[in-house]
Amino acid sequence: MFTIDAQQGQARTGTLTVKSGKTITTPFFMPVCTKGTVKMLTSKDLLATSTQAIISNAFILSIRPGLDVIKKFGGIHEFIDWPGISFTDSGGFQMLQPNFLLGVGKRGIHFRNPFDKNKMVFTPEACAVIQEAIGSDVAMILDDVVHYGQEYDRMALAIMRTQAWTKRFLITHTREKQLVFGINQGGTFADLRRKSSQLLAELDIDGYAIGGLGIGESREQMLDMIDVSIEELDPKKPRYLMGVGSPLDIIESVAHGIDIFDSRFPTMNARHGRIFTRKGFLDIKKAKHRDSELPLDENCTCRVCATYSRAFIRHLLTTDERTGHQYTSFHNVFFIQQLMTELQQAIAQGQFDEYRQQFLVEWHQ
Amino acid sequence: MFTIDAQQGQARTGTLTVKSGKTITTPFFMPVCTKGTVKMLTSKDLLATSTQAIISNAFILSIRPGLDVIKKFGGIHEFIDWPGISFTDSGGFQMLQPNFLLGVGKRGIHFRNPFDKNKMVFTPEACAVIQEAIGSDVAMILDDVVHYGQEYDRMALAIMRTQAWTKRFLITHTREKQLVFGINQGGTFADLRRKSSQLLAELDIDGYAIGGLGIGESREQMLDMIDVSIEELDPKKPRYLMGVGSPLDIIESVAHGIDIFDSRFPTMNARHGRIFTRKGFLDIKKAKHRDSELPLDENCTCRVCATYSRAFIRHLLTTDERTGHQYTSFHNVFFIQQLMTELQQAIAQGQFDEYRQQFLVEWHQ
Repeated sequence: MFTIDAQQGQARTGTLTVKSGKTITTPFFMPVCTKGTVKMLTSKDLLATSTQAIISNAFILSIRPGLDVIKKFGGIHEFIDWPGISFTDSGGFQMLQPNFLLGVGKRGIHFRNPFDKNKMVFTPEACAVIQEAIGSDVAMILDDVVHYGQEYDRMALAIMRTQAWTKRFLITHTREKQLVFGINQGGTFADLRRKSSQLLAELDIDGYAIGGLGIGESREQMLDMIDVSIEELDPKKPRYLMGVGSPLDIIESVAHGIDIFDSRFPTMNARHGRIFTRKGFLDIKKAKHRDSELPLDENCTCRVCATYSRAFIRHLLTTDERTGHQYTSFHNVFFIQQLMTELQQAIAQGQFDEYRQQFLVEWHQ
Repeated sequence: MFTIDAQQGQARTGTLTVKSGKTITTPFFMPVCTKGTVKMLTSKDLLATSTQAIISNAFILSIRPGLDVIKKFGGIHEFIDWPGISFTDSGGFQMLQPNFLLGVGKRGIHFRNPFDKNKMVFTPEACAVIQEAIGSDVAMILDDVVHYGQEYDRMALAIMRTQAWTKRFLITHTREKQLVFGINQGGTFADLRRKSSQLLAELDIDGYAIGGLGIGESREQMLDMIDVSIEELDPKKPRYLMGVGSPLDIIESVAHGIDIFDSRFPTMNARHGRIFTRKGFLDIKKAKHRDSELPLDENCTCRVCATYSRAFIRHLLTTDERTGHQYTSFHNVFFIQQLMTELQQAIAQGQFDEYRQQFLVEWHQ
């Protein structure tokens, strides 16, 4: 299911094969498709950015449109027209929202349904059933997600609870057409991250996700936690860093052994006019771009950069025209996918360190 | 510049050639591109709907991004990436908004600039200069637009004022690369419409627009006013009915001799989930479409209908995902452009009456 094709230091490139037989080269990046669409981008747009995998939210889709609808279509791929690989996140992260969460207990996550206001409990068993019904290629096990900055005891409890939930999830899940990834937790406590990995390593699962990072800690702390977490894991299985998607975080995390990423970062920044370029972020709303004939990024080969000027895109964003968001979202996702391709090639050719150094120099110009 | 290739009753199909040499078959429909973009559709999308002409707003573009920016790019086509034909509306219609308008006088339209709050006057001379700078293929002469339902005397004044403004516009306008259309006014007063046409017929202009219809009067009244207005005009010049874009209004207006249309109707309805189909309007937000595997319109060949289900598009609209608006906007514009193509062919083949009858029967099913 996962083969490592080349490795340089901790950085590695490999091939993940899902149960349908589709393959994808690592390291790869997944745009976030919470409700079944990436914001402002169609499924055809995504293919044109070289996106090969997306991640949607199982819990949210189970409420709207509802599992019966997705099942009637034969699964998420058919419902949203996605020919590539799809992951589903359990939805535990969304339940952290205060207008949602009632509390976390042994049974699962207690919350108030945002639509009908009923009290509900989301169990690991339900999480398995929902993701199987949605038919994603990779399901994420329900974890006890904890806010950034919580104290040690709460984090320690989360790990034990997640371990118990993981076992319950795996009993329910039949696994026939779906890979299953477990989630490492532990905040910024090295011993908890290690313990969490030791528990995961005992399980018969297809990959590991590292959760609860990229939410407030420093990059150095994040990389330290990645190092500690992966030490105890089976090195032959893929490692997915959840919710991290800035260019520098991706490069540094690949250097520390990460294979898979997802994040709203490229599309959310795009909607705010924050453009990824080889020379760092560019704020397209700034007055200096008012009459600029340059493309968003002079080094980019995407169809937006081939067609539209900074001046026009700035005009659309400053006059609140959503087509502007389509263009900036397309560019930022294309940029990240181009970066992933280059990282794959650099590792395969034994040039990762040189590539990384050059990217950093250009970025900080 | 305009040739009539076939006529059946008042309905006619012809060829409009603009000064750049580009041609377009009439009757045709222009999506509204007020600020330089059609809402939710990229320039590439528009081409894929078979759109060949768009109309933007000269006054609004002159404020944002500003004429200097558009001039630097060499004109509107280059600035917004539009290879087709472009009309510009003068902007008089926008100034009717109460937060904008200070009053209309002999000199022009007095208004408050919405951005810097300064008092300004928009003159017919400025209107000509701005549209020449924007470089559209067809410029509209500034008219004294009057709200629906105004009394006879105000309408009569508007016609005389528009006539005076038209002459001032034509003195200023050098006309080298740009066609110029004058605007017929008169509300629902037949004698005023006739008078307005008589004044327009004396002028050396390239086409006629009929303004101030489709804003509250009945369809019968609208068609009566079209009949009266075109009687006095040079039949060899193109006739443009401004702001009208529902399928039935288009078909009936073509039957009464209209060659050109523009309207927000298809895109605005699309964003509200009101879908054009051969069997009439379909409200995609209705619960009955929740799990429908059908395309928006079973008779449509557009890429949205070829790809996505009613259930998925309903899901996007009910969960406030803007990609849903992209899909519905694309479909509705494609639908209208398909209708225009069929109208052209029906007239060319002497089948207009049969086509119209059949469309009406299907529409009301």
